[in-house]
Amino acid sequence: MDEFSFIDSIKQDSYRQSSLIKGVGDDAAVFRQSSEDIVVAVDTFVENVHFSKETMDLFHVGHRILAANISDIAAMGATPAFYLVSIVVPKHYTSMECKNIFKGMQSLATKYRMDLIGGDTVAGEEMSVSVTVLGYVTKTKARYRSAAVEGDLVFVTGTLGDSQAGFHILTNTGAYQDETYYVNKHRLPVPRVEFAHYINEIDRVALNDISDGIGNEAAEIAASSGVTIQLNEHKIPTTESFSQFPADLQFKWKLFGGEDFELVGTVSKNNWTFVQEAANKAGIDVTEIGYVRPYRHNHVYLHKDNRLFPLKKDGYNHFKQVKE
Amino acid sequence: MDEFSFIDSIKQDSYRQSSLIKGVGDDAAVFRQSSEDIVVAVDTFVENVHFSKETMDLFHVGHRILAANISDIAAMGATPAFYLVSIVVPKHYTSMECKNIFKGMQSLATKYRMDLIGGDTVAGEEMSVSVTVLGYVTKTKARYRSAAVEGDLVFVTGTLGDSQAGFHILTNTGAYQDETYYVNKHRLPVPRVEFAHYINEIDRVALNDISDGIGNEAAEIAASSGVTIQLNEHKIPTTESFSQFPADLQFKWKLFGGEDFELVGTVSKNNWTFVQEAANKAGIDVTEIGYVRPYRHNHVYLHKDNRLFPLKKDGYNHFKQVKE
Repeated sequence: MDEFSFIDSIKQDSYRQSSLIKGVGDDAAVFRQSSEDIVVAVDTFVENVHFSKETMDLFHVGHRILAANISDIAAMGATPAFYLVSIVVPKHYTSMECKNIFKGMQSLATKYRMDLIGGDTVAGEEMSVSVTVLGYVTKTKARYRSAAVEGDLVFVTGTLGDSQAGFHILTNTGAYQDETYYVNKHRLPVPRVEFAHYINEIDRVALNDISDGIGNEAAEIAASSGVTIQLNEHKIPTTESFSQFPADLQFKWKLFGGEDFELVGTVSKNNWTFVQEAANKAGIDVTEIGYVRPYRHNHVYLHKDNRLFPLKKDGYNHFKQVKE
Repeated sequence: MDEFSFIDSIKQDSYRQSSLIKGVGDDAAVFRQSSEDIVVAVDTFVENVHFSKETMDLFHVGHRILAANISDIAAMGATPAFYLVSIVVPKHYTSMECKNIFKGMQSLATKYRMDLIGGDTVAGEEMSVSVTVLGYVTKTKARYRSAAVEGDLVFVTGTLGDSQAGFHILTNTGAYQDETYYVNKHRLPVPRVEFAHYINEIDRVALNDISDGIGNEAAEIAASSGVTIQLNEHKIPTTESFSQFPADLQFKWKLFGGEDFELVGTVSKNNWTFVQEAANKAGIDVTEIGYVRPYRHNHVYLHKDNRLFPLKKDGYNHFKQVKE
């Protein structure tokens, strides 16, 4: 693959962000942003660790990688603006295959008016894609995990476990209800940018995106905020046909499955109506799933069948009932 | 390697940049910059492609990777502020080894008061390090390759070919003069941040850093600016003891060797004294090595032994005399 002609082939003809001064084509990109705060994050995806050509096309791979990065920006309450892509390309990859990864990213970038402003293409043995995303957020309105306060209610957007269900369908032949729906939730997840934007006016929101399962993400909020979060198992939203899967898998996927790229957050009860209206405006569901209480013994408890279990960060293997 | 404890071990206790609002520890970092323009670049380095444990310690690897990235920022006339590091770690790497890569980066980051504000640590088969660097530049003073104008003189900082000489010494046993000097130029290159900052007051400078050899970098300036650059071979600065190497290697290294991370630029003759003073202030040498003329046939010509040769972007294999 010729690096120069490849870069030319993925370079945008024009840019969408008015804050951009210089895009691809010099030693670095240049932009100006005086009215908002700037957020930046990076994530790397390795073939056969984070994705496999067996369960998705390279278009999906690109889409999913950028979705995961944008989800981090949404979890800060920010709006994505730019991305840079560094890609390690093994010899057996064709430029067409690499271009498909970029096409998958471009489809989401177009949706959010994001510009590809830089990157690097290097040779290697193992395909990996590293994406840097930059976004903007109203000054002082970045949403931190540390903002949860005792008495807050805990909410989550969308439904959980769908991505894992899609992966299950792709790797276990059989007849499934809503097959395309689940497979698309796995391959083409949509980050919750609009919702994160619409709750912008609320003074205080703790926010995290669900990349590693709600158990982990709630624990991160609780640990950062020095509180305990109590979740109601029966309130955790799932898709109606989710009940077709074995109960143990349902439980595992919705609590620890991850990669749904939904948002989990906490707000004061006063703001709950506002959050519901924001979800409405964004055309998504939002569900109250628990509340925040003073820290005691564990950061996350799950209320299930009238009993209380501590939810451990590293998964459901450690799941056992406790007296409390 | 446990990712969480590793991230904790490389996390800074405190941050140096006053524009930083949130560093490591949430979904993204947050900063605010209203008085300057922001530059951003990313570069990826793969083991046994861009570096090898046989010719350097992992401390050097880290140092050199961040130096290469900072060099891109300097080539924009900007001052580095932040970096994010995404690292793919094979199983056989210990956390101590990974930590040494970060220590190498930290040594340079400390020098420039840069903050590590994010990253990702993932498992893979092949070690690769992807670094995103952000910097600040006075508004409208970003230095583009496209700024060269007919009549400009061409300058270069420092000496060229030293990094390749160092690599040669490391891979060919023998007795060499200034061995440590060359080896350090290869392992611990110093980007030209101060110089780039001191020429800030000049209205117009075309600037590029020398990562791929001055032939390539001058060609990038010339192509972006739509001009031809003529370089004088005997003016290209080298270290005194560089003459110990075979003439063909000297020629190859100083013109196409790259990885010296010096800066090549063009300015109007009126500003040459200012450029020299800036170099003085930065404690480095700067040398006039050619001039800019209207575009004709080729982007770069080399004047050597009273004859003129076109310098091709892809190296000295294409080097042959032309009538012009």
